[in-house]
Amino acid sequence: MRSDIDRLMAERDLKAIVILITESYSAELDILVGQVQMGKGLALKKQGEAPILIAGAMEVEEAAASGLDVYTMNDLGYADLLKEAEGDATKAQVGLWGNVFEKFAVQPGKIGIYGTGSFSFIIAFIPLLQAAYPDYRFSGELGSTTLFDEAVLTKDAQELEQIKSVAERTSAVWQATWDFIGGHRADGQTVVDEDGKPLTIGDVRRFVRRALLDRGLEDTGLIFAQGRDAGFPHSRGQDDRALQLGQAIVFDLFPRELGGGYHHDSTRTWSIGYATEEVQEAYDTVMESFDVALETYGLGKPTRLMQDAVQDYLEGKGHPTQRSHPGTTTGYMHGLGHGVGFNIHESPRISQYSKKDTFEVGNVFTIEPGVYYPDGGYGIRIEDTFYIDDNGELISLTDFHKELVLPLQPD
Amino acid sequence: MRSDIDRLMAERDLKAIVILITESYSAELDILVGQVQMGKGLALKKQGEAPILIAGAMEVEEAAASGLDVYTMNDLGYADLLKEAEGDATKAQVGLWGNVFEKFAVQPGKIGIYGTGSFSFIIAFIPLLQAAYPDYRFSGELGSTTLFDEAVLTKDAQELEQIKSVAERTSAVWQATWDFIGGHRADGQTVVDEDGKPLTIGDVRRFVRRALLDRGLEDTGLIFAQGRDAGFPHSRGQDDRALQLGQAIVFDLFPRELGGGYHHDSTRTWSIGYATEEVQEAYDTVMESFDVALETYGLGKPTRLMQDAVQDYLEGKGHPTQRSHPGTTTGYMHGLGHGVGFNIHESPRISQYSKKDTFEVGNVFTIEPGVYYPDGGYGIRIEDTFYIDDNGELISLTDFHKELVLPLQPD
Repeated sequence: MRSDIDRLMAERDLKAIVILITESYSAELDILVGQVQMGKGLALKKQGEAPILIAGAMEVEEAAASGLDVYTMNDLGYADLLKEAEGDATKAQVGLWGNVFEKFAVQPGKIGIYGTGSFSFIIAFIPLLQAAYPDYRFSGELGSTTLFDEAVLTKDAQELEQIKSVAERTSAVWQATWDFIGGHRADGQTVVDEDGKPLTIGDVRRFVRRALLDRGLEDTGLIFAQGRDAGFPHSRGQDDRALQLGQAIVFDLFPRELGGGYHHDSTRTWSIGYATEEVQEAYDTVMESFDVALETYGLGKPTRLMQDAVQDYLEGKGHPTQRSHPGTTTGYMHGLGHGVGFNIHESPRISQYSKKDTFEVGNVFTIEPGVYYPDGGYGIRIEDTFYIDDNGELISLTDFHKELVLPLQPD
Repeated sequence: MRSDIDRLMAERDLKAIVILITESYSAELDILVGQVQMGKGLALKKQGEAPILIAGAMEVEEAAASGLDVYTMNDLGYADLLKEAEGDATKAQVGLWGNVFEKFAVQPGKIGIYGTGSFSFIIAFIPLLQAAYPDYRFSGELGSTTLFDEAVLTKDAQELEQIKSVAERTSAVWQATWDFIGGHRADGQTVVDEDGKPLTIGDVRRFVRRALLDRGLEDTGLIFAQGRDAGFPHSRGQDDRALQLGQAIVFDLFPRELGGGYHHDSTRTWSIGYATEEVQEAYDTVMESFDVALETYGLGKPTRLMQDAVQDYLEGKGHPTQRSHPGTTTGYMHGLGHGVGFNIHESPRISQYSKKDTFEVGNVFTIEPGVYYPDGGYGIRIEDTFYIDDNGELISLTDFHKELVLPLQPD
């Protein structure tokens, strides 16, 4: 939880956290200071103190909307630094950090650097900072147990309310899309509208994006992949292709609050009009493995045991897995789930590589087993986002049915 | 231009470029390999050779859509590395780079690291790479003259066609929004619909986002700021406020191709129903300064001379500028323009700090003078995106009028 940040800083012996704000979206910035529309500047947090923001003059009003103390870059002497440096912005930026450390009395020691932006820039910039301020150590973190990974492991009641709201609106888009497609009819094996015009994947994608927008959500790259494309877990689908009857469609919808905020992540597999025997059988198996996952759940249990159980089940049904066939590109080759928040993928992870993650109250995460056979012309995935409530119960946030066959209008 | 990348690599003595692909959008990846929907992996380019992509198994189809040679992480031995490292993904990632260097015969020397992602991760990761592969030097670049800054300074004919298409569709959204607001009427000083319901900034923002989506574009954070808010150049505007007559509205629209691609950047200032004398006068002055900028243009000229001329003009009219009053938060305090492409802000820059930029054939950039007086309750900005054609002519891409007063329907 956000309230853990001071503890997590202490564990890492961080005197301060600095987030470099750029034009790239940073979940870390949202986590530390709440949503704020800034394209440059710094967020500084000392251990035990509230964060402060340093903003460009043009963004000072947006920064102030955070409710935090805001200083302009010129309050920190940036205009003078730029003049002294004869317009050399890099020199002035390095100087700005010194002014920040001085003005806010940041103790010498380890400074955690966070944020999202240009790798090239930061690789060149950090050595300059390090040379200019040898009393500080500018440090990063690797792997999936960084300060911010740990800070988002569990969500508090207020966060959960926002997460539930995104979930409800996403569930409404599921229903609207099912109804939209179901309002069409068949012409042979092709889905067509009342004028006989084929319904394309591009049409569906446009419908979904508008339906999201109408509910204050935004698409972050939905998957709507049919037939062979569905056999590759992350194929987005081809917009110019018309929807076909009897082909498995993997529809993975993971929107977030418009302009930034919490995500909801859910997947359904649909077969329009009817399902082939092969697809129906694979679908039933994936649904069973989904139930296996739920049955394996237990508060405090290591998350990887859930992946073990799903792999046991799917291997038993004859599907290769990442465990039985490392590097396999068919069968079940991905993790079982991941945390969902400001990041679409965050902690906890449910995979054989999650050595430390356990199920805890306040976790919000997906469960998403699937099997993929591109040469068989299909893929199947089923995904809900869950949370663990105060009683340790596992609750689905995705309120939409899991029917495989989507019926069309009769002729 | 993209075709300059080999020359730019040679100038920097880079044996290879590596872009680390993450879930964050990277303009550099788009520039190097074209648009590709990948959330992890590497793009590698050796001097004089086409880039190749290294993708996760799940994204191999999306990677292949680039037309480039694609290898899976497992082709490079990732599954074995992960097994050897007993699931330690960091160790396996470091090992992967060695396999990449070996398989693709990357010569020892300087390797340019690019891409967009977690600062914390790369700060911790680069020293591990450097320690594991001492024959290579992993380097970044600072400032506004990086390899990719220089590669996008000019656009080729094919890029320009795509840029013109985004411009045309954005211009259509300008007209549609003008017509949408103009279809309302006044109730006292408030803009209302036919049922008398006030039209809010949020309503306009929703209209604009849908109008963009209908044309295959996406909003990347439009500004629609009224009255005092317009006095802060980057205030986004408050959704719950109703549109008021006679207040300056700064509307800065900078969408891009849906899912990633070229941006178009343009701003208009509107005053609904009528304009106050003060706003009209400031508006006329900004329009004149816009013309001054155009008159100052000359192929091959340093861009900063255009900013000088605009500052001269606005100072002459009594407005403080960043030059006359460093750090000012009123008057004209920002750069005059910036390149526009995959990045909303790129080279060339038109500001007093642009020491090296000159106007060249193939540049695509904004011109956007403005004046801001939050305490006066207004701000004004006018912005078009321009390009320089093969004859060295400066051509506006923004095809929409610059009327200040937006008339409403009569009662």
